This record gives sequence, C-alpha cells and structure tokens, in this order.
Amino acid sequence: MTENHDGTQVSVLGLGAMGSALAGALVKAGFATVVWNRSAGKADALVAQGATEAASAGEAVRASGLVIACLFDHDSVREVLGPLAGDLAGRTVINVTTTKPRQARELAAWAAESGIAYLDGGIMAVPSMIGQPGASILYSGSQEVFREHVALLDVWAASSYFGEDAGLASLYDFALLSSMYVMFAGFMHGAAMLASAGVSAGRFAEMAAPWLTAMTGELAGYAEVIDGGDYTVAGQQSLEFSNLGLFIEASAEQQVSAEPIAMVQRLVQRQVDAGHGAEGFARIIESIKHPAA
Amino acid sequence: MTENHDGTQVSVLGLGAMGSALAGALVKAGFATVVWNRSAGKADALVAQGATEAASAGEAVRASGLVIACLFDHDSVREVLGPLAGDLAGRTVINVTTTKPRQARELAAWAAESGIAYLDGGIMAVPSMIGQPGASILYSGSQEVFREHVALLDVWAASSYFGEDAGLASLYDFALLSSMYVMFAGFMHGAAMLASAGVSAGRFAEMAAPWLTAMTGELAGYAEVIDGGDYTVAGQQSLEFSNLGLFIEASAEQQVSAEPIAMVQRLVQRQVDAGHGAEGFARIIESIKHPAA
Ligand SMILES: NC(=O)c1ccc[n+]([C@@H]2O[C@H](COP(=O)([O-])OP(=O)(O)OC[C@H]3O[C@@H](n4cnc5c(N)ncnc54)[C@H](OP(=O)(O)O)[C@@H]3O)[C@@H](O)[C@H]2O)c1
Ligand SMILES: NC(=O)c1ccc[n+]([C@@H]2O[C@H](COP(=O)([O-])OP(=O)(O)OC[C@H]3O[C@@H](n4cnc5c(N)ncnc54)[C@H](OP(=O)(O)O)[C@@H]3O)[C@@H](O)[C@H]2O)c1
Repeated sequence: MTENHDGTQVSVLGLGAMGSALAGALVKAGFATVVWNRSAGKADALVAQGATEAASAGEAVRASGLVIACLFDHDSVREVLGPLAGDLAGRTVINVTTTKPRQARELAAWAAESGIAYLDGGIMAVPSMIGQPGASILYSGSQEVFREHVALLDVWAASSYFGEDAGLASLYDFALLSSMYVMFAGFMHGAAMLASAGVSAGRFAEMAAPWLTAMTGELAGYAEVIDGGDYTVAGQQSLEFSNLGLFIEASAEQQVSAEPIAMVQRLVQRQVDAGHGAEGFARIIESIKHPAA
Repeated sequence: MTENHDGTQVSVLGLGAMGSALAGALVKAGFATVVWNRSAGKADALVAQGATEAASAGEAVRASGLVIACLFDHDSVREVLGPLAGDLAGRTVINVTTTKPRQARELAAWAAESGIAYLDGGIMAVPSMIGQPGASILYSGSQEVFREHVALLDVWAASSYFGEDAGLASLYDFALLSSMYVMFAGFMHGAAMLASAGVSAGRFAEMAAPWLTAMTGELAGYAEVIDGGDYTVAGQQSLEFSNLGLFIEASAEQQVSAEPIAMVQRLVQRQVDAGHGAEGFARIIESIKHPAA
C-alpha cells in the first residue's frame, strides 16, 4: 500500500454506484485507498486504478485510521459496522450513506459510546457528478473530523459543515431534496394543465424555469416574516387573497389532477379556518409545523 | 376629454387596487382615459391626474372604442358587460379580470355572438408593479386586438400573446402561479423540518433559493422526455430510486406535516403500482394527466 503526500490512508466500505465514484476520486487524487464490498467483483476496476482490496470489512477497517461508509441504508451500515465497534475504537468514521436525521443521531450516539469519531454526510449529487463542479456534500457531527479531513472531502464535492448535531446534514439534505421534488411536482401540474390545451411541456419549461427562478426571490422575504414570528406585517399577500380554489376548479375543468395545488390549498384553509385569513401567506408554514390531528 | 398622440381613447371599468393601477398608468402615459367604478369615490385620485369619470358603465363604454374590464371576478364581468352587449357591439373589450380558462372561453363566445372584439388577459403582477420592470401580462383571444393595442398594453407590463383560444392566457397564468404556490409550499416544508432542529427560515432560504434555481435547470430535460413520450430513455433517475418514503418518515420524526412531499409520493406511487417503477421520474406527470378515480 502506497501513501499519498499527507499520509492519509482511507478505507471505503461499499462499492455501489456512489461508493465506487467516491473511492475512484480518492485514488485519482493520490490517497492510499483500501476498498471493500460485500459481494465480489466490484473492486476490480478500482484495484486496476491503484486501490487495494480488503478481504473483509474488518480488514478494511483495521487498515486505515479513516473509514468511509457508503452502503445502501442505515440498516446495512449497522450490520457492517456494528460488529466492528472494537476495531473502530480510536478511528474515524465518515458515513455518507443516506439516513434519516434520527438514524444519523443514533449512529453518532453509538459511535460516541464506542470511542469512534463520527461525521455524517448527505450527498447532493449523482455518482457522475462526484469530483465535478456542482456536486455538494453536507456534513454534521464531529467538527474536528470535518476540519481534519476537509481536503479529502473537497476531492468529492463542495463540502459544507452544519454543526455538532449529527442529524443536521441529513435534515438539510432532506429539506433541500424535498423542496426540489415538490417544485418538480408543481411544474408537472402546470405542464399537465397546458398539455390539456395542446401546449408542449417544452414550451412551458421555457417559461416556468425563469419564472420559478424569479419567484425564489420571494423566499428570503417569507423567511423574514417566519423568523420574525408576526404574520400580520404589512405588504404581504393575505391567505384569503390567495384564491387557490380557482386553480383547483380549473384543473378539474381541464380534466387533470389538482393534487399539487390542492395540497397547498389545504395548508391555506387550515389557517383560514383557525381565523388567520387576513394574515400573510407565509403563515402556511404553521400548518406544516403543527400537523392536523 | 383630451386625446393622446395616437388618438386612442380608452375606458377602464373597475377601480379596485388593480384597475386603479392600470388606469393610472394609462393616464400617465398620455392616453385619454375614461374611468368608472360601481361604488363612488374611487375615481377621485385618477380624475385629479387627468382621467374623466363616467356616470355609468354604459356611459364609459359608449365613450371609447376600447374598453378595459378589471373587475372582481367572472360573475362581476358578466353582470356589468352583459346588459351592455348592444353598446359594446363594434367595440373592443380587453378583460384582465382573473377568470378560469373555461370562463374566458365563455366570454369570448359571448363577445363573438355580440360582435365585440375580445382579448383576455392574465395579470402576473401586483398593482404596485404595474408600469414597472418585472410585471408581465399574458394575453389570448383576438390577435388583431393584441396587435392593434400592444403599445397601450406595454404601458402596463411586458405583454405576451398565446393564441386565438381565449382560455390560453388564463391557462398559462394558472399553470405558472400554481407551480409557484406549490414551490412555496415545498420551501415551507423544508423550512419547517429545519425549524424543528432550531435552524432559522432565513438560513434555509439562503440555501434553498440558489438550490431551487439550479434545479429549475432540470425542467427542460423533463419536458423533453414528456414531449418525447418515452419515459424509459436512459440517464434518468427512476421512480423506484426516488425514495420519498424516507422524507415522509423523517417529517413525522421531526413532528412536522409531510403533506407536501406525501403529495409527490402519491404521484410516484400510482405509477409504480401501475408497473412503471423502472421508468423516469418525469412519468409522475401521467398521474396528473390521468387523475385517480
Ligand atoms: N446513487 C446516487 O445517485 C446517490 C445520490 C445521493 C446519495 N446516495 C446514497 O449513497 C448510498 C449508496 O448508494 P449507491 O447508489 O452506491 O447504491 P447501490 O449502487 O445500490 O449500492 C449499495 C451498496 O450497499 C451495499 N450493501 C447493501 N446492503 C448491504 C449489507 N447489508 N451489507 C453490506 N453491504 C451492503 C451493496 O453491496 P452489494 O454490492 O454486495 O449489494 C452496495 O455496495 C445510498 O445510501 C444512497 O442513498 C446515492
Ligand atoms: N391585486 C392583485 O394583486 C391582482 C393581481 C393579479 C390579478 N388581479 C385581478 O384583478 C382583478 C381586480 O383585482 P383588484 O385587486 O383590483 O380587486 P379589488 O381591489 O377587490 O377590486 C374589485 C373591483 O371589482 C368591482 N366589483 C366587484 N364586483 C362587482 C360587480 N358585481 N359589479 C361591478 N363592479 C364590481 C369593485 O367595485 P366596488 O369598488 O364597487 O366594490 C372593484 O372595483 C381581479 O380579478 C384580480 O384577481 C389582481
């Protein structure tokens, strides 16, 4: 095993689409990289590029002070790392497997008990974007680990650190991805409405992309109202004014599903029903913060 | 009554927040403007600026070849214009009252029967934006009317024309506004998730605005797949891969409502259930185009 200039030796557990991309980027950047995958054959291409294959997860862990886990899900991480707690003690784990905030906190607690330094990561990229501009990975957990290894992490993507609560990276990751999926569904709703009149989705996308981009300019203003906690401040569009009922009726008349906008209307309606109709639109966050029973 | 350089005399029916802004912009641009409002007093400021007040809607209609309607809703437009069909024959109506596509088509049909040239408009602006950069008004219906009056229309906002089907402006308007409201709800969901961990909405907005802007870059690609009609083309994230269940669970664990992302998940699930799980994410539009029974 060769070591790179700063002597960091790193082991990567899991060589699926993402794990392979991460390990490949490390090899290319000159890090001495040990790789392991549950089923055979997935290490071959990486070994040809200069990685070293370990015969077991335990061997991979014992080979390096820094262990990267990129497995399928939280359960697979527990299954692989759990029995190796003794070997991992005194080492560092950076887990970039997608997990829920609660699961990340659970792993961090287990790591703390086991004397393992733990950093959790949420990957905002597809494998082909790793090492390319535009890729971003969110981290939380041990700030010491983040600081020590940021040069290595930056090989993969732009790295941001959010705090000692190990669940934060996942929470930011989920918040951003979730808002993206919801935006996509809103686009699909608009495209379906226009399709009912023979307009192509491409024509709508040409208008929707700059329009939605312009409308992201409203988010900071909504955030200010939310953080201020006073939804009655002047200059906002009121909930009552936001007559989403027309959109729902129009969807039905065009024979397309109103589900995306009906979801928003329910959030609006609960606030109107609670007597807040004259307050600003940002108040719909209260419908989300306090779910209906 | 004075007339401006090109001799266009225009009457504006309805001096609510929006009608007043439209009439004010016309007066300022030098158009000879007659105004009328159902209840008294709303014309005073405009008259002080040079507009002429008509004593009745009929008088306003008879004063000009071009009549702008900016009333509350479709019913108020029918109530005001309906009895004046005889006076309106041979004149032009541009109706910028918010109506559903079907209502716009209904008015266009009534206008055609009555010998009235009809253009329908959907205003993408709040009153304070009228005459300012960033305001946009969508039009459909008579292309002749649009062409003849585009200089006047451009006083208010950037004017776009979408076709002879009078319902199109409303349809584009609703598609764009609806996608905006859905995006806002997605943002609120993300902000609520992070709020549960003590992160401010302002902090999230700083990340979400550029993130969602970047993600609008995906819309053209989705549109291409949709318009191509083949959701199996390579290089797309599959529906099965889009594991929104984790987001729903995480929302519950953070004790916030999962409604926005659960809406997307239902659209995904219906396609998966129908056997299309291996196809691309863009296929969720089929769940909207063909509503569940
Ligand atoms: N791909 C992306 O676009 C993307 C984007 C962001 C985040 N991520 C996250 O990155 C992680 C890996 O994704 P991927 O795309 O690489 O997935 P993948 O291609 O399906 O690979 C899954 C990996 O996990 C291993 N594995 C699964 N269960 C295991 C177990 N019980 N014990 C040991 N190993 C196990 C698999 O090993 P075998 O080969 O033996 O099955 C394989 O190496 C996931 O959490 C994913 O959410 C992926
Ligand atoms: N304000 C905005 O941000 C905005 C943005 C885009 C589109 N729009 C659309 O523009 C239109 C006007 O909006 P607005 O903001 O000006 O509303 P508004 O301030 O509530 O004014 C409504 C106007 O309609 C008149 N009206 C209502 N019912 C009537 C009836 N049966 N007969 C005669 N007149 C009647 C009112 O007259 P009285 O004074 O006698 O009540 C008033 O002039 C609406 O369709 C709205 O959706 C508004």
